[in-house]
Amino acid sequence: MELFNYFRSSASYRVRIALALKGLDYDYRAVHLVKNEHLDPAYASASVSRLVPLLRDGEGLISQSMAIIEYLDETYPQPPLLPPDALGRAQVRALAQDIACEIHPLNNLRVLRYLSKELGVDEDGKNRWYRHWVESGLAVVEQRLSQPGAKHGAFCWGDTPGLADCVLVPQIFNAQRFDCRLDHVPTVMKVFANCMALDAFAKTQPSACPDAE
Amino acid sequence: MELFNYFRSSASYRVRIALALKGLDYDYRAVHLVKNEHLDPAYASASVSRLVPLLRDGEGLISQSMAIIEYLDETYPQPPLLPPDALGRAQVRALAQDIACEIHPLNNLRVLRYLSKELGVDEDGKNRWYRHWVESGLAVVEQRLSQPGAKHGAFCWGDTPGLADCVLVPQIFNAQRFDCRLDHVPTVMKVFANCMALDAFAKTQPSACPDAE
Repeated sequence: MELFNYFRSSASYRVRIALALKGLDYDYRAVHLVKNEHLDPAYASASVSRLVPLLRDGEGLISQSMAIIEYLDETYPQPPLLPPDALGRAQVRALAQDIACEIHPLNNLRVLRYLSKELGVDEDGKNRWYRHWVESGLAVVEQRLSQPGAKHGAFCWGDTPGLADCVLVPQIFNAQRFDCRLDHVPTVMKVFANCMALDAFAKTQPSACPDAE
Repeated sequence: MELFNYFRSSASYRVRIALALKGLDYDYRAVHLVKNEHLDPAYASASVSRLVPLLRDGEGLISQSMAIIEYLDETYPQPPLLPPDALGRAQVRALAQDIACEIHPLNNLRVLRYLSKELGVDEDGKNRWYRHWVESGLAVVEQRLSQPGAKHGAFCWGDTPGLADCVLVPQIFNAQRFDCRLDHVPTVMKVFANCMALDAFAKTQPSACPDAE
């Protein structure tokens, strides 16, 4: 397998964690987003959306981090990253999507670039925007971890790491990089600490990547 | 089952389509977003994120439209909304996420409100923002439908409607409402027309909902 990704891309980090949890080997292919390497024709021919991450497994080319992780979970089932029951799986997917659909899309590089270049939003406005979506979005995750029907233990769902943890941890890295408030999400931060104690999360973090700066 | 939703919410419409494709009955519970009914304590007690849609199935409360649709597909498997093979499922999920993670989150009501109220973006800037993400995002979907490994037929994947169609159709409704360009995505529009010829898509569209204005 080959993973086209970027050390600082949080969607890339989600997939690195999943691959590590599964104990799968892969070739690390760096695509430098800030240097616009994702716009190179060579990359565009493989990636229609020109986004990272992109996984190549044999003939298959798969984009979108959550689709990749579900693919890995179906193809390499051990250890499972989703609970065995449909309702549990739905709750874990909803948790992951609370981050992947409600927080992260508002804060990625191309969106921040559009805000400043096209709408003339200044640095301060951009930082407020960033923190607003992270802080309010993580407050939802915090509540969700303790709502009726939730089953958080050491991790987002029970005592083994799964899909929701793969998505949560990179979001906390982004939050810390942008000095977001995190004191209102103690349960989230406990889960984060438990994750970071594991090699699968620690050894794949941005600063540990081959293309880290 | 009960579906808490709003006629104009495109994430709600995704779930209405899936329920109709499965032939499942449910009680329609309207939550008026523009009147801020999603912030009522009564709704907040069921929905941590205060977003629609929210599905109640027995004891289970499930949020996030894609998580709900996967839950429905696992619990009521006929007709299936995902292909039988892992790679096909990954491609369909990636297509759905190209819309649900890259286009829709940038254009929902609370984001547009934040742009104007907090960042002082004017009406013209807001409309340019909206169209930019819809038009560039749908161009990706258009390319993806015809890329190597894609299997679009009458619908996004083959000749039966599935998860990607449930997500695509509501996005086209939004695009049309905001006068976005659509002449650059002919394949997408062919799929859209094929979907709208089916009751499951036509009879659940915003204007056909009990709370439509």
